[in-house]
Amino acid sequence: MTRFVDVHNMVRWVAGRGPERIISEMIEYMEEDFRRWEHFDKCPRVASHTPFGVIELMPTSDHESYGFKYVNGHPSNPSRGFQTVTAFGVLADVHNGYPTFLAEMTVLTALRTAATSAMVARRLARPGSRVMAMIGTGSQSEFQALAFRATLGIQELRIWDTDPAAIAKFLRNIEPMGFDVTVGSSAADAVQGADIITTCTADKARATILSADLIEPGVHLNAIGGDCPGKTELDPAILLGGEVFVEFTPQTRVEGEIQQMPTDFPVTEFWEVLLGARPGRTSPEQITIFDSVGFAIEDFSALRYVRDAVAGTAFFEEIDLVANPDDPKDLFALVAALSPVG
Amino acid sequence: MTRFVDVHNMVRWVAGRGPERIISEMIEYMEEDFRRWEHFDKCPRVASHTPFGVIELMPTSDHESYGFKYVNGHPSNPSRGFQTVTAFGVLADVHNGYPTFLAEMTVLTALRTAATSAMVARRLARPGSRVMAMIGTGSQSEFQALAFRATLGIQELRIWDTDPAAIAKFLRNIEPMGFDVTVGSSAADAVQGADIITTCTADKARATILSADLIEPGVHLNAIGGDCPGKTELDPAILLGGEVFVEFTPQTRVEGEIQQMPTDFPVTEFWEVLLGARPGRTSPEQITIFDSVGFAIEDFSALRYVRDAVAGTAFFEEIDLVANPDDPKDLFALVAALSPVG
Repeated sequence: MTRFVDVHNMVRWVAGRGPERIISEMIEYMEEDFRRWEHFDKCPRVASHTPFGVIELMPTSDHESYGFKYVNGHPSNPSRGFQTVTAFGVLADVHNGYPTFLAEMTVLTALRTAATSAMVARRLARPGSRVMAMIGTGSQSEFQALAFRATLGIQELRIWDTDPAAIAKFLRNIEPMGFDVTVGSSAADAVQGADIITTCTADKARATILSADLIEPGVHLNAIGGDCPGKTELDPAILLGGEVFVEFTPQTRVEGEIQQMPTDFPVTEFWEVLLGARPGRTSPEQITIFDSVGFAIEDFSALRYVRDAVAGTAFFEEIDLVANPDDPKDLFALVAALSPVG
Repeated sequence: MTRFVDVHNMVRWVAGRGPERIISEMIEYMEEDFRRWEHFDKCPRVASHTPFGVIELMPTSDHESYGFKYVNGHPSNPSRGFQTVTAFGVLADVHNGYPTFLAEMTVLTALRTAATSAMVARRLARPGSRVMAMIGTGSQSEFQALAFRATLGIQELRIWDTDPAAIAKFLRNIEPMGFDVTVGSSAADAVQGADIITTCTADKARATILSADLIEPGVHLNAIGGDCPGKTELDPAILLGGEVFVEFTPQTRVEGEIQQMPTDFPVTEFWEVLLGARPGRTSPEQITIFDSVGFAIEDFSALRYVRDAVAGTAFFEEIDLVANPDDPKDLFALVAALSPVG
């Protein structure tokens, strides 16, 4: 039988264990996997595009477990009552190829994206960073805020969204949790004085939500909204003014903010920083930019963590996903046993 | 909610409706999809190889529905009590990216592979074909036999397998269904006098289960076992002696029997024959070879067919795979509603 964590169980588990604890624990799994980056099978995700959205498969393997995520991105979904992003994921045993674990990943992706952002910011943001600006207060925003509090102690947020309802929603969710939130009058206003800027907007278009003159020296920019060909958030001049860090270069060149730059534009893969092979931030004045698009290894870590964390709990069920004939060469026996013909 | 056909329901449905009827109906869906071949998003499947097996994702889309299959291939699995191939698949709505249908595909893949073989043979085998030789009597063999009976009226089988237990298993399953079966003394013996030869062996290696001198004029060769880089069944001389038909050339050049041939070795894609754009069999003496590896559109057709066929029946359940917050931008509300913090 295959273990399955559905939405109901995932939400109950997250609420009970606490999103901040989950994000902190997930970062441990992620750092473990990023440290053995070279050991993984890696490929850019496989995307099927339409003019209004994308569906992607994101596989990877560490030669013990294989994992993949199904994820969509449809920026116009919320106006029709659907979420921009939904996802589910699977782990399998590489040794026999059998799927072992299935989980909803709409909630889990929000947690893993937040964990990735915080994992990277912990290494790249200026020590003593206190204030985070957040441009975009959609589905992912509360998870981002909790991740930065859990990991860097960020309590003070300056926010902006073009949708007033999204701002109101964010305030309603986040203020009871003890954050100090200021709503800016614009994106430009919101980022003033911030140590960290998180951009998390969703428009399948070339957008410029921030221009280079707004990015003050020493800022760490956590850019997670630009993640598809033709979908960017930042003025290219911002990328020229800082050091750019990425997950998996071949994928980010196609999907990330750096799709706007020449193909030899210099970037550093984050795993190299984690291992000490390449420098991270080199001065307090440097602008560091995490051009994040989301990579399969992050989902692999998230799935691995949830699989381990729910073992022995009531937060999963077993589903009958893989046929199991007594004789492995006699698949037909399953049908014959029930067949009027057999 | 997402509809889910698990193994239990799939087997009950197949046994009740009957595998031959299912294969015939599935071929209708497949031909419909092969006729609009050019309309599909197509890419070679995405494979993660180890020395002992492969795990693959096979996506495609007709711009209304998106589908993919997860499938493994581990030829040494049966000796350890596991099946060589297991699979599951998903359909999603391209317009919002939400997954709508999940199904076991271990049983379904055996049916779809058999349906594909029979769909192709119906167009390419010599009219009046009466006898089929089957080399390899593993998991797929009974489904192949039923498909060829349902589609071409084949009643007479000549079989061979290196594993006597697999032969005994095949006889036990197939004889009660009214086939006339002769067990050969070797592969060479079994193919003598056959109109159609189905090769369905599984070894992750270059094997030569048939040599060119054994292939008589007019034979249709349904070669389904060679489907991975380094995994072939046929003497390359066989390919030179006939006309080779494939599913999706870019994938078959890497995975099929033609991986043994130069990259410009001429092949015909089957959809072109179906549309009448290219010739199929041109004479009763011609040897036609279907170098089948399995392509995503076949799984898409199979999933589409099962989805439609089980609608309104009790052969599926609904699972809670996709989060559904009241406000699509308020994913966090799902957690907050249950959280001690919220």
